[in-house]
Amino acid sequence: MFSTRGYDAATIRAIAGAADVDPALVHHYFGTKSKLFAAALDFPFDPEDLIGRVLAGGIDGAGERLLRSVFAAWENAASRAPMLAIIRTATTSDAGAAMLREFLDRNVLQRIAVALAPDRARLRAALVASQMAGLLMARYVISLPALANAPVGEIIAAVAPNVQHYLSGDLGQPVTVDVNLTPSH
Amino acid sequence: MFSTRGYDAATIRAIAGAADVDPALVHHYFGTKSKLFAAALDFPFDPEDLIGRVLAGGIDGAGERLLRSVFAAWENAASRAPMLAIIRTATTSDAGAAMLREFLDRNVLQRIAVALAPDRARLRAALVASQMAGLLMARYVISLPALANAPVGEIIAAVAPNVQHYLSGDLGQPVTVDVNLTPSH
Repeated sequence: MFSTRGYDAATIRAIAGAADVDPALVHHYFGTKSKLFAAALDFPFDPEDLIGRVLAGGIDGAGERLLRSVFAAWENAASRAPMLAIIRTATTSDAGAAMLREFLDRNVLQRIAVALAPDRARLRAALVASQMAGLLMARYVISLPALANAPVGEIIAAVAPNVQHYLSGDLGQPVTVDVNLTPSH
Repeated sequence: MFSTRGYDAATIRAIAGAADVDPALVHHYFGTKSKLFAAALDFPFDPEDLIGRVLAGGIDGAGERLLRSVFAAWENAASRAPMLAIIRTATTSDAGAAMLREFLDRNVLQRIAVALAPDRARLRAALVASQMAGLLMARYVISLPALANAPVGEIIAAVAPNVQHYLSGDLGQPVTVDVNLTPSH
């Protein structure tokens, strides 16, 4: 139901209805919709818990803590498989892209944004997501040798300042673009 | 032939043989294998030329110049379509991933690496690629609202220092990872 309707429209009520059970039962066994989503997709960790842990330590060092937590899951092939499956679905179907977009936006990015300074918080969270998605692609999907073979500790050291820049750095003033760039989505 | 054999094994000789023409004819019309690849996949720009232009201005500001060049192509839906098709193929088939990996590694990352300081140059180039791939995914495929709706000039301002950090910044000393992270590819 998440993959055909998208994350938002797949309500716990609708899911319980399709399973012919009481919505309270779904809540009892799975908790929030975010936790149900994580269970349905076999996530090796609960995104809510992970973000909570990363942000609980304050904004200083949150970039490195996020990378440590994510790599701890990704470095195990079985644990990263669900993430790769979602990326695959998102790149090959609009419904898959909508599911990932809505889940990330509602449950991951807004949660990070709330914990950040109000200055362009959602853009900051989305920029962090772009770097994490790119690392996942480059190390595990495309397997660029320099990234696929590098020790995790070396990657974390190189990337942590960049994630931190997105979280709490000065994002600067928009630059003037010289060509007439009009988004055509 | 690129997508079934991969970039490396699809030699100009093999391609010419399959087309029953002299390899010199392929060279005459398309130049290098990299340019033939760009033509076969309908790239809106020649990666060789783009990298040459970005790096010709020296390392200072190369991060922002790269982002400007890439967004100039991506912001046009027709121009970014080939890139998205390659990403799709790479996420859904091993042969597609190999094609993209070999092309990026031989023609893009090594070229950037040669122009950089020898200090971990290929890792730097791969980290740049990870951020660019992540931006492509987040803005155009998953369409995270905060990134999909942001003006290009705002994104370039926020991301340029990070690309520049990968190109010429201090990548730091590897951090110690506390869990036993063994790559299982």
